Amino acid sequence: MKCSKCGGTAVINMRQHRLRLCGRHFLEWFTAMTQRTIEKYKMFIPEDKVLVAVSGGKDSLALWDVLLQLGYQAEGMYIGLGIDEEIGYSNKSLEMCNKFVEEHHPDALLHVVDVGAEYGQSIPQLARTTQRGRGRPCAVCGLVKRHIMNSVARDGGFTAIATGHNLDDEVAVLMQNTLRWQSGYLARQAPVLEERDGLARKAKPFVRIYEREAAAFVLLRGIDYIYDECPFARGSTTNYYKELLNQLELNSPGTKQQFYLQFLRARDSGQVTFARPRESELHPCVRCGQPTTAGELCAFCRLWE
Amino acid sequence: MKCSKCGGTAVINMRQHRLRLCGRHFLEWFTAMTQRTIEKYKMFIPEDKVLVAVSGGKDSLALWDVLLQLGYQAEGMYIGLGIDEEIGYSNKSLEMCNKFVEEHHPDALLHVVDVGAEYGQSIPQLARTTQRGRGRPCAVCGLVKRHIMNSVARDGGFTAIATGHNLDDEVAVLMQNTLRWQSGYLARQAPVLEERDGLARKAKPFVRIYEREAAAFVLLRGIDYIYDECPFARGSTTNYYKELLNQLELNSPGTKQQFYLQFLRARDSGQVTFARPRESELHPCVRCGQPTTAGELCAFCRLWE
Repeated sequence: MKCSKCGGTAVINMRQHRLRLCGRHFLEWFTAMTQRTIEKYKMFIPEDKVLVAVSGGKDSLALWDVLLQLGYQAEGMYIGLGIDEEIGYSNKSLEMCNKFVEEHHPDALLHVVDVGAEYGQSIPQLARTTQRGRGRPCAVCGLVKRHIMNSVARDGGFTAIATGHNLDDEVAVLMQNTLRWQSGYLARQAPVLEERDGLARKAKPFVRIYEREAAAFVLLRGIDYIYDECPFARGSTTNYYKELLNQLELNSPGTKQQFYLQFLRARDSGQVTFARPRESELHPCVRCGQPTTAGELCAFCRLWE
Repeated sequence: MKCSKCGGTAVINMRQHRLRLCGRHFLEWFTAMTQRTIEKYKMFIPEDKVLVAVSGGKDSLALWDVLLQLGYQAEGMYIGLGIDEEIGYSNKSLEMCNKFVEEHHPDALLHVVDVGAEYGQSIPQLARTTQRGRGRPCAVCGLVKRHIMNSVARDGGFTAIATGHNLDDEVAVLMQNTLRWQSGYLARQAPVLEERDGLARKAKPFVRIYEREAAAFVLLRGIDYIYDECPFARGSTTNYYKELLNQLELNSPGTKQQFYLQFLRARDSGQVTFARPRESELHPCVRCGQPTTAGELCAFCRLWE
């Protein structure tokens, strides 16, 4: 298999792009693709202060690495969830983030918020004491992470939050929403969510990157990461749809990319329209000050009542 | 497994309806479901003269049987495609239609049009002499069948054409169109297509019936049918999506039904809107008189040039 650019030995075949690349040209391509995505969807500019949500996994570390290489003002934020589950998940993932900084970007800034130390309960503890999420901590975890991201971004003067969601993540969510024709979710799913009522803009610069490409990227860059996925995500619906979509992709390369990008195009051009639920009025939570549609306390602050 | 209605031995478990039924109650349910679908989507009324497209397969024979049982004026139409492929496909399928009439509805009328005898070339022959369909006769076959159905309906004074498309058929097409967000197709896919410019209304009374339910119905009714599918349909994209959707259904019963019915509901209620391509002007073909958007000759008549 030969590199489409230089004829050298290719390390990856991206059938959806009809492109085979050697290590050097793949790294170039990956970085350029991320930059093109940032520009195309107007995610942020070099003047923005960007907070990158890092988990210690391949996608978020690859994202932080690329953003720093591209010269963005990108600081990392790690949220300690306190998940052990006999594999020391959270400890290991923080280690990977620290190792990444030391080995690759010693000048980079990593903000660490430990949920247990900061608020008194880890995610698994909190999940046991609240009603949310039918026995799984995922709903609580999402809520807590969003709150902390928004609050670190606000306090640190960040104008954008970047997350490592890749095309596989986005397309699995899209499939889930489409199978139920959930117009509200389908109206909102996007590569970038604009700033609203003081909540920082949220961007996903990897929406055109397949998961396997992020894996190849960190391998070639020598970035170590946590291989385990979160123990609570095992057997999740999202993972089920990912497998299904990989089957489709295998049968017809480019299916995932086409499904997602054509969705964005059809919606942007008005070929397909999804009704948006009326946006609720937001007001600041009396305790934390973050905008909320709930009563006096936002959903996050109510968790700790 | 007990019948949800009478406590007798159930023969089928329809998990999407949370319903297990014995033979007698399943046959009752199946007929009532078809009648409800006909009414819900305003497909036809007892005063309509309905032409049922029968292929000798389980779905179309089940449909004809149910429509006759429900007292509709339903005549059958069989189109001889001249497909042999070493299994005598077309001959056997005509036999099954004749056998159905003899054994179940001796007074029913079956119109038979043999493509080869009527127009000089069978479908496989025609497919070899035209450009359409990239080596597969399926595109030509669809075009020819639509033309003949319309013309038999027009000449016989039928006000509606009914086909045996079941929920599995519809949902496979829906998946295919959705994965590409083909708004034109998504705008038009429907249980009933209204009469337009002299083309009879087309209705699919089985859109809420799973394929396995149609199979159970013919088995319980003692209707013999052709088990082989059309040899040219093997390995088709539609079949691929059917398998995929069956996987989804197995993982989460009701997925197929929800995907399809929620699509119809979301579109009817305006939650989701698909842009319709502007309808082209129709004029009568100078040879056959059927409405066409093409030049002087319609696509069917051009096949034989």
